[in-house]
Amino acid sequence: MIKVKFGHRVQELRRKTGLSQEKFALLINMDRTYFASVESGKRNISIENIYKIANGLNVTMEELFRDI
Amino acid sequence: MIKVKFGHRVQELRRKTGLSQEKFALLINMDRTYFASVESGKRNISIENIYKIANGLNVTMEELFRDI
Repeated sequence: MIKVKFGHRVQELRRKTGLSQEKFALLINMDRTYFASVESGKRNISIENIYKIANGLNVTMEELFRDI
Repeated sequence: MIKVKFGHRVQELRRKTGLSQEKFALLINMDRTYFASVESGKRNISIENIYKIANGLNVTMEELFRDI
């Protein structure tokens, strides 16, 4: 469940950037299919990859986990 | 660096519970040596294990990442 909630939050914030999954993944140097599966809540993502996403979204870790 | 910051934060909150590393790890059903290495900032911990720690500490994910 935490993986699903996290995926939704990432998707919400990524959409605000106006970037597609593909473009965002490219921006943060992450495999596109891996990133898509994170948004789908399918990955037990590691803290280093979470941090990479937070940086790409220009939010703190705290903001990324808001209301999760 | 994120791993080290996270480890420090976990240690800070775990100490507030008054529990030793060993007792806290037992409480959340996590291997004691694994938990010790998380506090030492040596583990690229996954979101599910981060969540397990947050629950054991009785804090939200947002609180766990406060000021990290």
